[in-house]
Amino acid sequence: MFGGVLGCEEKMYEPRYAERNQLLRPEGYREWVFVGADLGMGYGEGQPSKTASFHNIYIQPEAYRRFAATGQFPDKTILVMEKVSAGTNASINRRGQFEDRFQGIEAAVKDESRFPEKWAYFDFIGTGPAPLAKARPFPKEACWKCHNEHGAVDNVFVQFYPVLREARQRE
Amino acid sequence: MFGGVLGCEEKMYEPRYAERNQLLRPEGYREWVFVGADLGMGYGEGQPSKTASFHNIYIQPEAYRRFAATGQFPDKTILVMEKVSAGTNASINRRGQFEDRFQGIEAAVKDESRFPEKWAYFDFIGTGPAPLAKARPFPKEACWKCHNEHGAVDNVFVQFYPVLREARQRE
Repeated sequence: MFGGVLGCEEKMYEPRYAERNQLLRPEGYREWVFVGADLGMGYGEGQPSKTASFHNIYIQPEAYRRFAATGQFPDKTILVMEKVSAGTNASINRRGQFEDRFQGIEAAVKDESRFPEKWAYFDFIGTGPAPLAKARPFPKEACWKCHNEHGAVDNVFVQFYPVLREARQRE
Repeated sequence: MFGGVLGCEEKMYEPRYAERNQLLRPEGYREWVFVGADLGMGYGEGQPSKTASFHNIYIQPEAYRRFAATGQFPDKTILVMEKVSAGTNASINRRGQFEDRFQGIEAAVKDESRFPEKWAYFDFIGTGPAPLAKARPFPKEACWKCHNEHGAVDNVFVQFYPVLREARQRE
């Protein structure tokens, strides 16, 4: 498609896989469109964690523009969620919390020909010191079910992503 | 320059002005590079505000790539800070805070031929219901002085922007 504010032809970054539907870690997402952040977001009852992290969520620019124009996420949409530790009281900061150290990424992928439920979810953080280069999809019950029941649009928590909400309001 | 992951020629969005160095509200920044967020960030002592806002900070993609390659912000760099209210306990959210409603933007601009101190600072939020279409630069004492004394690199609080810090570490 010919898209974007700069009028140059772009090709959307698409999900790449290893054997058994393992997703290769998405690349270049820090130059994608940021759709929203949260701090310590949780869905269960209970006290907030003392080690709450920021989450920054990104989408491919082409998927962003398609959603803005149509309200639908195209096939091959990827949403990357980057976790960042929360810092405070450093440098001249005295109140509130800023983003300190990267902790890793998770990803949601819409791939209609590959996943019967259309969307699948992946965690590249793992338990070791290095981030994972590839990740298996979570079982359906672990992520998909909640996203499907509560995501405002097509399994996506648009209700928490103001950039996506406003993109639609402009149309 | 020929830049970017997609290899197409781009022209950096440059600051535009009205009379008396008033900056016209930057456009299209939601497709720029996001460099970091904070929640309720403050520099003074005292209790955190009960109406803490998120801040999302953006930079032009070309300025981001130049900073990653050289550690310097090119002339005409713009950093846009968008303020977003913090929501909680909506939809399935029970803990933490997500980004709810846009409140407006502020901007930092590096323009060496226009501003004797190189950088100037602008607030497009104003006091009325509608955002401002143009804004006068703040007096030097209001923003520039603190940015100049405490910004880790060239008046910019790189210490609070993990994407900029990591971009440099990769070089």
